[in-house]
Amino acid sequence: MQNYSVAELLEAKNILQEIQIKGWVKTFRSNRFIALNDGSTIKNIQCVIDFDSTPEEVLKLITTGAAIEVKGVLVESQGKGQNVEIQVSEIVVLGASNPEEYPIQPKKHSMEFLRENAHLRIRTNTFSAVMRIRSVLSFAVHQYFINNGFYYFHAPIITGSDAEGAGEMFSVSTLNKKNPPLTESGEIDFKEDFFGKETNLTVSGQLEAETYAMALGKVYTFGPTFRAENSNTSRHLAEFWMIEPEVAFNDLDANMDLSEDFIKYILTYILEHCKDDLEFLEKRLLDEEKSKPAAERSELALRDKLKFVIDNNFKRVSYTEAIEILKNSKPNKKKKFKFPINEWGADLQSEHERYLVEKHFKSPVILFDYPANIKAFYMRLNDDGKTVRAMDVLFPGIGEIIGGSQREERLEVLKEKIQELGIDEKELWWYLDLRKFGTAVHSGFGLGFERMVQFATGMSNIRDVIPFPRTPQSAEF
Amino acid sequence: MQNYSVAELLEAKNILQEIQIKGWVKTFRSNRFIALNDGSTIKNIQCVIDFDSTPEEVLKLITTGAAIEVKGVLVESQGKGQNVEIQVSEIVVLGASNPEEYPIQPKKHSMEFLRENAHLRIRTNTFSAVMRIRSVLSFAVHQYFINNGFYYFHAPIITGSDAEGAGEMFSVSTLNKKNPPLTESGEIDFKEDFFGKETNLTVSGQLEAETYAMALGKVYTFGPTFRAENSNTSRHLAEFWMIEPEVAFNDLDANMDLSEDFIKYILTYILEHCKDDLEFLEKRLLDEEKSKPAAERSELALRDKLKFVIDNNFKRVSYTEAIEILKNSKPNKKKKFKFPINEWGADLQSEHERYLVEKHFKSPVILFDYPANIKAFYMRLNDDGKTVRAMDVLFPGIGEIIGGSQREERLEVLKEKIQELGIDEKELWWYLDLRKFGTAVHSGFGLGFERMVQFATGMSNIRDVIPFPRTPQSAEF
Repeated sequence: MQNYSVAELLEAKNILQEIQIKGWVKTFRSNRFIALNDGSTIKNIQCVIDFDSTPEEVLKLITTGAAIEVKGVLVESQGKGQNVEIQVSEIVVLGASNPEEYPIQPKKHSMEFLRENAHLRIRTNTFSAVMRIRSVLSFAVHQYFINNGFYYFHAPIITGSDAEGAGEMFSVSTLNKKNPPLTESGEIDFKEDFFGKETNLTVSGQLEAETYAMALGKVYTFGPTFRAENSNTSRHLAEFWMIEPEVAFNDLDANMDLSEDFIKYILTYILEHCKDDLEFLEKRLLDEEKSKPAAERSELALRDKLKFVIDNNFKRVSYTEAIEILKNSKPNKKKKFKFPINEWGADLQSEHERYLVEKHFKSPVILFDYPANIKAFYMRLNDDGKTVRAMDVLFPGIGEIIGGSQREERLEVLKEKIQELGIDEKELWWYLDLRKFGTAVHSGFGLGFERMVQFATGMSNIRDVIPFPRTPQSAEF
Repeated sequence: MQNYSVAELLEAKNILQEIQIKGWVKTFRSNRFIALNDGSTIKNIQCVIDFDSTPEEVLKLITTGAAIEVKGVLVESQGKGQNVEIQVSEIVVLGASNPEEYPIQPKKHSMEFLRENAHLRIRTNTFSAVMRIRSVLSFAVHQYFINNGFYYFHAPIITGSDAEGAGEMFSVSTLNKKNPPLTESGEIDFKEDFFGKETNLTVSGQLEAETYAMALGKVYTFGPTFRAENSNTSRHLAEFWMIEPEVAFNDLDANMDLSEDFIKYILTYILEHCKDDLEFLEKRLLDEEKSKPAAERSELALRDKLKFVIDNNFKRVSYTEAIEILKNSKPNKKKKFKFPINEWGADLQSEHERYLVEKHFKSPVILFDYPANIKAFYMRLNDDGKTVRAMDVLFPGIGEIIGGSQREERLEVLKEKIQELGIDEKELWWYLDLRKFGTAVHSGFGLGFERMVQFATGMSNIRDVIPFPRTPQSAEF
């Protein structure tokens, strides 16, 4: 007896004698037909059992969610809907699943209910499809960078550096919370803490990645990052995975090329490797959108949206040009934007980004050369003295999906900026060292992985594209 | 002018006109020969400049660590030690590196000094070799699992569950440390904390991975995990990366097969993909060991040690057999073990594990069926009632490199164990659900990634195989 997976059997070209398979019952109908799934694919294999020769007490245990082992022969299917099926000669129920108690019944559950049962929601078609795509997308990320001569850099998660300022941080400590040690002046004595100093969870691995890029040339991170912001939205997680490539000698143009090439590669990869799961999610999304007013429905089906990104050149537009376009746009004139665009310097909101992508250019857009004062301290100052070499990649339906920049490589300019912002130079001594010793032009960007999974799967809430989401007031499991 | 990397040029078969390359100066001798490196390989390319036509002020800036751009022609080398070299027609110093200040001079630095300069140590041959191998090894991990039908599962980093008990945990919080909110009874009011409950950094993603294995079939984690233990040793980090596969329907034998196959794959992969870096590190290790007494030197060179693991069948031995062997061993009888083995039930130390691998069996060893009371609560109890289906994979020079088990799939047995240990069932409601609904035999293991990188690179201190190590009293950068 050889063991097979559902995926293997569905691809089998011949009749197979003496097969064995283990999985979970999705449905059981007419006391004869078991739809069996083992997670290897979204598709089930039909197992046909002989009602008469199967004991009553076994039949009773064949319910949704039960783990079973089946032996038999793989044959061409007599029925519709599948090419092959298993004629079962032996069935063993490994683990029952009491239908009175099992939460995941073959019916529609609310997303909120499934979030409360995040340990079981992976047993639904939707979540298994999403998480398989998440896995394939992860692999595509690694494959892309490794194929292109990058090295994977593991950025530290616990950090003693708080200069990055990308957001609120979580504190990490082993101090007694109720009676923390105090200094003579009555402050918390962090010398007594595990690391001998105040530490937090990282908000970005970029600064550390720069140290590696300036020696290995091309590196990327792919790891968890954290924001302690009280944002209860469908776009924010307190814990999420981020991808941050960083490349020595790349200027902003090369950085744009990299971002476009990278995105197109990973989306092409899943179109090729996740056909069944994407097909399922595309249908799901169409169903979901039927209940929406026509104006809120997507113009494109899921896979067409991926192809839209793959097939179009990303339109590269300066921030200044974009402001002109937005200022003169219909929705701005008709006061349809929630945040009207009146002048240069405004921070763009998702509604503006989506207008540029979906209405004006009808292609993904890369905006660049943003006002210095709305961007981070490490971005390279342009000669105009007021813009920096920042870039944001904008997507349909989402807005910003990537933020990046050419980094300020000039020691004096960087020092001035740090001083202006009141950051202590000592905090960044090692970052400044990169500009002291063998400095060079370099660039990179950050991509919030879950945003990309959302885009690739069409899931509307970011909590549904990560196995166990962490959000304000919620860290179950 | 086309841009090349050092790796590309060293592999070029022909003379190349009009090439351009950017990198950092490793050494500059006789005012003529620059050894240039860009991180793409451990090897440098020799750039020959025309002393007479190069301005004095440029020559002065060509010092170790300086970033330069070079244009010229790739030709066959006239000198020894390299096949090709660049005849430089133009050189630009992009970023100087003051030799009076630059810490990374072409000489031997102490490892401690390099740790204090972890942002620059990657510019040394040793660290660039180690970190390139780390990257390739990471990719091999992903490739192995994806090729074998696994899905990559991102385990949560912040966890509200503290039942795993694998070690001391770091607390994660946004509460005001000096004046935390208190409940009426004077305890910390965690309802006011970000997640509305007490949360910590994960020590293992296994329990969560089990929830996914029981739906997707085969999953693996590869992410950071944490231990807040005050262990200042060359084998412990407070933050390290762990790999944890988990497979539905696998029993312990299949789990052993998986661990052996997996290890052999990733080590074979780096032997094939990291030839130059391994060769360098092998020489380095030989040099390092020259200063040691003969008895402490490794019997095998670095790559031979990798081949030793690849070429030998892992010997599978029960704990009970191992205790007999150890009890009757020479070092035990001669009282050479620091922890003498007197009776069944003893927890094995590194010295015992190494004896079994290096002296007795002369092959990697998998020990299995350990006493229940020295292993974790979730391991499957054997019919003898006193041992569990645990396994440890033991390596030469290291001892335990993998720990795993078949998991207890029987609800009642697991509940009893939890009760015995005084764990609140409510804490593990979701874990118990897996045994209530469609339970099945399943198994998995954990591999501390840095231990494997240590083995693969021959580095004696674990702090030197992760970019920015976190250890007691140290979280710099």
